Amino acid sequence: MPDTTSDNRTTGPAAIAGGTGRFTGGPDYRPLNEQSVPAFVAAIESCVATLGGQQADWTVREVGDGNLNLVFIVEGPSGGLVVKQALPYVRLVGDSWPLPLDRSYFEYQAMSVQSRHAPSLLPRLHHFDPGQAAIVMELLSPHIILRKGLVAGKTYPRLASAIGTFLAETLFNTSDLAMPAAAKKGLLADFAHNTELCKITEDLVFTDPYRFADLNRWTTPQLDETAAAFRADSAAKIAAQEMKWKFLTAGEALIHGDLHTGSIMVTEDDTRVIDPEFAFIGPMGFDIGAVIGNLFLAYAAQAGHETRVGERDAYRAWLRQTVGAVWREFSNRFQALWSEKAAGDAYVAELFDDAGGRAALRARQSRFMADLLADSLGFGGAKMIRRILGLAHVEDIESIGNPDRRAAVEKRALAFGRLIMVERRAFGDIDAVCDAAADLLDGKETS
Amino acid sequence: MPDTTSDNRTTGPAAIAGGTGRFTGGPDYRPLNEQSVPAFVAAIESCVATLGGQQADWTVREVGDGNLNLVFIVEGPSGGLVVKQALPYVRLVGDSWPLPLDRSYFEYQAMSVQSRHAPSLLPRLHHFDPGQAAIVMELLSPHIILRKGLVAGKTYPRLASAIGTFLAETLFNTSDLAMPAAAKKGLLADFAHNTELCKITEDLVFTDPYRFADLNRWTTPQLDETAAAFRADSAAKIAAQEMKWKFLTAGEALIHGDLHTGSIMVTEDDTRVIDPEFAFIGPMGFDIGAVIGNLFLAYAAQAGHETRVGERDAYRAWLRQTVGAVWREFSNRFQALWSEKAAGDAYVAELFDDAGGRAALRARQSRFMADLLADSLGFGGAKMIRRILGLAHVEDIESIGNPDRRAAVEKRALAFGRLIMVERRAFGDIDAVCDAAADLLDGKETS
Repeated sequence: MPDTTSDNRTTGPAAIAGGTGRFTGGPDYRPLNEQSVPAFVAAIESCVATLGGQQADWTVREVGDGNLNLVFIVEGPSGGLVVKQALPYVRLVGDSWPLPLDRSYFEYQAMSVQSRHAPSLLPRLHHFDPGQAAIVMELLSPHIILRKGLVAGKTYPRLASAIGTFLAETLFNTSDLAMPAAAKKGLLADFAHNTELCKITEDLVFTDPYRFADLNRWTTPQLDETAAAFRADSAAKIAAQEMKWKFLTAGEALIHGDLHTGSIMVTEDDTRVIDPEFAFIGPMGFDIGAVIGNLFLAYAAQAGHETRVGERDAYRAWLRQTVGAVWREFSNRFQALWSEKAAGDAYVAELFDDAGGRAALRARQSRFMADLLADSLGFGGAKMIRRILGLAHVEDIESIGNPDRRAAVEKRALAFGRLIMVERRAFGDIDAVCDAAADLLDGKETS
Repeated sequence: MPDTTSDNRTTGPAAIAGGTGRFTGGPDYRPLNEQSVPAFVAAIESCVATLGGQQADWTVREVGDGNLNLVFIVEGPSGGLVVKQALPYVRLVGDSWPLPLDRSYFEYQAMSVQSRHAPSLLPRLHHFDPGQAAIVMELLSPHIILRKGLVAGKTYPRLASAIGTFLAETLFNTSDLAMPAAAKKGLLADFAHNTELCKITEDLVFTDPYRFADLNRWTTPQLDETAAAFRADSAAKIAAQEMKWKFLTAGEALIHGDLHTGSIMVTEDDTRVIDPEFAFIGPMGFDIGAVIGNLFLAYAAQAGHETRVGERDAYRAWLRQTVGAVWREFSNRFQALWSEKAAGDAYVAELFDDAGGRAALRARQSRFMADLLADSLGFGGAKMIRRILGLAHVEDIESIGNPDRRAAVEKRALAFGRLIMVERRAFGDIDAVCDAAADLLDGKETS
């Protein structure tokens, strides 16, 4: 039987699974419901203390609006908890699309690693039950999902700094710049088993939007011609598959793997990253691109939400500034970590410990960051396109009721996503990207 | 206890090891010797049949001249076998440098995979005994180690075709171009445990030649200034660490990991690749570069072996042609496989199944091969440098008795290795690289 203690971060999946390849979901696994959650939680000492009172005093509600899991909020006299349980199928599609419960193991492991490097930027972990594929964590309150805040036009002055910090700390500290090779290869081996969730990304992000696929959908008939153009767009298909090659082969760091604005919870003062069940050792730019691409989707959507042209200009300016600030915060902090905490096997610090070496390494760091920006734009553009032509769409745009207005937003977002994906190496810096967004995404031509 | 059957290619390391992280070397492990080998072999039915006669009829001799293992040749009335057993330390250095027996497991697994894709280009496998960390394989006769043939000035007309084929078949078929992502991630996870041998490469190839390291040695005093210049050469150090970053992060294919001319056995007609104990999912260019770099070391060494200037010009021409032919054979076959057998998750063939798509994919393949040539040159140059300034040297050069002549060869090889590593992206094709070799490595200035 799998280990059911609340902290098994030193226990690899092979040890837990006994080599069977199943990391979670025991013979007693069954989906929780609002009736069974209190007894489940009552068996966990730290949870009882957090909730306070007795089992009968606790309220439970299921709030999962994602695609893959059950999410329960449990509240007691002293506090609240979240219970997140994996389902054995894709909730969005139904039980015709089975999905392994193991992802709960990978999510817990990823949160454990992330919480060592950015502890204030994710919910506190209370417990992991591999048999039930369930994670119990801090209830974030009064946080809301960032995407909903962006749809509502709310600004978050501390968001960029927090996300830039999360990206820098989690990506640098799990890379070969910070880790000895053997330790990093340990993470690589463990997370290499998270194949099914990676496969979802491989298909839905990089491939399906560019071919006929049963699960694709788009605003029709307005986008029919645009979708057909993408299916015939060799340059876009090559660029998307170049990014897929990188997704399949570039083992740079432990990435979140799904860091869109629905995986970030916010208040005005606080920012937390949730839901890293897609985590694996992959390309750093995939996480950065997820943030940037989804902020640009929010940006494009403003034209569909404003009641008069230009009404949301100030909000657009804030979104542009936020994209720039996320990148700059990330980039500055990542380079500072590289200069101060390079304890890994890559770019061995000792080799560059003289004046010439320091200058050469600084120049190399600049080129590294430029390459990483290009990767981030490539991934970000791919993620924008897939949210309009593929299976999973975003509320920012779906909430635009008028299909003509929505389609106009979508066409602009597609053109911009294609541009930053195909021409990802042509932007000198993040400001050039934001300038292009102002040119292509404002939508004032529809006035 | 580990499985001791002769074919466990479907059994992953976690299953064999029970999650302990030890894949080979049981409690009964002990180094074999010429007295104990016959009884070891007699217990393996297929080996008895190959050898013929009785145990008393068999002769055994230990022939290991490598750095890490015992190698026994067993001969009987009907035929011969090789028994290769891992030692728990680096033989070159002694028991002060322990090394896990697990490498025997990785070598066997790599040979199993390679023999599926290039069966005629490696020895036939007879048996694997994880408990004794021992592999029993075909005795190659009258093959010799390629490096010894190159020192003797022998030509091998079928070498380039065989090695180009081996590289193309093993690298393409274990890449995301040929394999479904989940299957390739299975290989990635298994071989990610081969950390200690990778660490040897990481340190000895990419780092130690560029710093003071206890194990470094070079021809002294002739090369003292050159070695000091490399320790102060920021451009070379950056380039070497760029290649190391790729070695640490680029999970492109199952690479041999040590494909120098001492890992190739030849006759005039036959070519076999041996010793893939350094195998892991890494950058394709590392194997190609190992071949190219070691052929150029042989080329540089000719100036130290000829008895009059120009005596080995024809042999130099053959070596240059061989480097060119290895690359072209590899490149043509790899691209042909890509066009005909692309069943993997990368560059999904269906997306490019129209005239425009085919042209775009062909153009992408050309860029892919150009990038791969640059990688190969970077790795090849790093491998040339480490064989002169680092721990492990090559017989091609070590066999030049006069230290002044040897140092002259070494200086030229270092300059050329540095050039193809630092300027790896500046060569338009392999012919330009061979032209540079003719300019820099012939050594006629010493006449």
